Amino acid sequence: MNNVREMTLFGYLMAGPTWHLYGAWRHPDSDALDSLDPRRYETIAQICEAGKFDGVFFVDFVTIFDTYGGDLQTCMREPGQMCMLEPMQLLAGMARVTSRIGLAASMSTSLYPPYHIARSFATLDHISQGRAGWNIVTSAMQSEAQNYGFDKLLEKSQRYDHADEVLEACDALWESWDADALVLSREDNVYVDGSKVRYANYQGSRVSTRGPLTAPRSPQTRPVMMQAGSSPRGRQFAGRWAEAIFTVQSNERDMRAYYRDIKRHVVDAGRAATQCRVLPAIDVVIGTTQAQAEEKAAEINRYASPSLGVQELSNVVGIDLAPYPLDTPIADLDLGHIYQGIVDSIRQGSGRDNLTLGEAGEAWSRNQMCPQFVGTSESVANKLQHLFENECCDGFMLCPSLSPGGYQDFVDGVVPILQHRKLFRTEYAASTFRDNLLT
Amino acid sequence: MNNVREMTLFGYLMAGPTWHLYGAWRHPDSDALDSLDPRRYETIAQICEAGKFDGVFFVDFVTIFDTYGGDLQTCMREPGQMCMLEPMQLLAGMARVTSRIGLAASMSTSLYPPYHIARSFATLDHISQGRAGWNIVTSAMQSEAQNYGFDKLLEKSQRYDHADEVLEACDALWESWDADALVLSREDNVYVDGSKVRYANYQGSRVSTRGPLTAPRSPQTRPVMMQAGSSPRGRQFAGRWAEAIFTVQSNERDMRAYYRDIKRHVVDAGRAATQCRVLPAIDVVIGTTQAQAEEKAAEINRYASPSLGVQELSNVVGIDLAPYPLDTPIADLDLGHIYQGIVDSIRQGSGRDNLTLGEAGEAWSRNQMCPQFVGTSESVANKLQHLFENECCDGFMLCPSLSPGGYQDFVDGVVPILQHRKLFRTEYAASTFRDNLLT
Repeated sequence: MNNVREMTLFGYLMAGPTWHLYGAWRHPDSDALDSLDPRRYETIAQICEAGKFDGVFFVDFVTIFDTYGGDLQTCMREPGQMCMLEPMQLLAGMARVTSRIGLAASMSTSLYPPYHIARSFATLDHISQGRAGWNIVTSAMQSEAQNYGFDKLLEKSQRYDHADEVLEACDALWESWDADALVLSREDNVYVDGSKVRYANYQGSRVSTRGPLTAPRSPQTRPVMMQAGSSPRGRQFAGRWAEAIFTVQSNERDMRAYYRDIKRHVVDAGRAATQCRVLPAIDVVIGTTQAQAEEKAAEINRYASPSLGVQELSNVVGIDLAPYPLDTPIADLDLGHIYQGIVDSIRQGSGRDNLTLGEAGEAWSRNQMCPQFVGTSESVANKLQHLFENECCDGFMLCPSLSPGGYQDFVDGVVPILQHRKLFRTEYAASTFRDNLLT
Repeated sequence: MNNVREMTLFGYLMAGPTWHLYGAWRHPDSDALDSLDPRRYETIAQICEAGKFDGVFFVDFVTIFDTYGGDLQTCMREPGQMCMLEPMQLLAGMARVTSRIGLAASMSTSLYPPYHIARSFATLDHISQGRAGWNIVTSAMQSEAQNYGFDKLLEKSQRYDHADEVLEACDALWESWDADALVLSREDNVYVDGSKVRYANYQGSRVSTRGPLTAPRSPQTRPVMMQAGSSPRGRQFAGRWAEAIFTVQSNERDMRAYYRDIKRHVVDAGRAATQCRVLPAIDVVIGTTQAQAEEKAAEINRYASPSLGVQELSNVVGIDLAPYPLDTPIADLDLGHIYQGIVDSIRQGSGRDNLTLGEAGEAWSRNQMCPQFVGTSESVANKLQHLFENECCDGFMLCPSLSPGGYQDFVDGVVPILQHRKLFRTEYAASTFRDNLLT
């Protein structure tokens, strides 16, 4: 609907204490003590909707991370990315206090059958009148599989083969009702025209479902599809399915490389490059002057600590790093080449090669390599505009260290500047999540 | 908390057109055209909360019934018990516009692993501040299994063996956090005291889970457990687990027999008989005079039809009855002895032995053998008091043919009389669902 290319903006959420800076829950302005209160998430959705964001989205892990020291006491003291509550129920409440913003959550193709996934997002799409989004995850933690009664996860590339079938089955379910099948005519005595409803009858090599779905076709037919593909197979999967991609890239060069590679995968899958929005994660700390912003960032970042960072790293790579002293050179650690990408991103992010485990931990603990832009609204807007106009991204996933202030400052300060420069919408042009995102 | 025995009252719900009288969606006062609108369910919850009901509860089937004629066109024209939307999301919204009423839904132990069930109800219990309830179902429809990717359901008694393990695993998850594990102390730098959190490590012969749950212990620890056991194995299961039982019994004698049998099973399981409330389903049509009530009932009941009833019967017994003419004597039909109970209840309800299929269909279509009490508020209150005081029940599951008027009329007319007679609460005594229900 717009001829001018506009940014896409999302707010990142987790139903737990903090997002990327675990220690930030201790900041006096943090809302992390309200993590069980649905009003916390409703407030954030309302802030982001006031800022005309495309969507908010819940990351979700169905496990308590406990790799570090194999010890709940150590790992839960400051548990950071602990996804306490089931996000679909939170989104259902957020749908009732907002009217235009997209509402998305992660759900695992490895842990849930397509019928559950399809019915859950169709329900959210009906309740929200066309604002549901699904972040497709295949689950990477063995403990998630064990929680759900499986011995272990499938091997990574098999998980994506499985996910392809789950998506195909979901599509068959979402399309099992024609848009005009729900007739609701008292005069003609027809609630549903069953000739416009059909079985899914999906039979893959791993996944099957009969259908039809219980829910009539929803306003968007299917939720906006999100993904965070990183491995080659994950990027191929994203190229086929994703309409919005969330990624963590610590610098401009990596953002650009990722952006180009994903767009290539999208085109290779037969889709227009514009049909998938690439959204690097950013943290933003705004001040009235550069100095004041830097003071504010220092105030937040002092909650990062090397030991907490090492603990988080342990969770992410799935290897217990507790036995290693903090002064161990990370070059000496055998983290397995599968996690080399994380080590590389820490090296690049810190600009140093010869890091110790403690230094890597501190770098990681700050923002898990999500770049932190610190400055005035004007200077941050400049930075975002530069990335947006130089093939680094289609917009951003805002992951504030400090909630809800990080969303509020961005909406109050940066959004009006982006709007003034015609880089971002001033009103929602459409009523559905997808139509606002992709047109 | 009360020394006087008080009734328990629940409102029955389905996220679809109608409950027991399929054709009632055509009544001009029916809200059945709003079945995809969350406000429909919020309104009903608010009406029932104004009437101080213990809870509202969603029946749920994860399938479209299509036995009759094997034909979606016939079966969906007036689809009655079609559970279009996923009920947990609706309950999450209802939690935000109510403060005391219990909020329950069915979820299947055959289709979902314990971790999903435990996390879903823990989330609802947190969001609602202690008002979650779970109607434990084992699923009876082969098409539900096929929707979820299974070839077929386990045989019935095995489904209950499986369910016992699911419940044990859920309990281990719900108890994986001590009540004081969530510390939230900034001074002491402790978000969670992990020494008060433990693994579930549940390993049954059919079901396993690792834990801990992502959610801290919720206000009720576990949801109020509901069930609708009917078979001998189902009643044994209910005796062990259920805190509230929903049942359809067409007359006083059957209610009394069921009540006594369930209480015996509860005591046999080592629990106090009062720890499980038995709630027969009732439909109520209220008028200012008996004649006016009967006129109103006739106005509703004219939407019942023999052919629709035969279709509903087909769904319930899982046998296609389309090939049989409506004048076939039901004694000539081989429905399998497993469904003899349904045939018997139709015979008893109608007071006749030699019914045709059409007559059975008409009887079934009216209310699926749920008794319909028609009269003034006073005469209906008398009837309920009689059943309550004569070992037939501990209260009622209100299943109106007509929504939302059936709830509103009951709350406006019958509830004040029950309150005046000290048979029902005038205020909620406690803040949680369980404490209101059982104390």
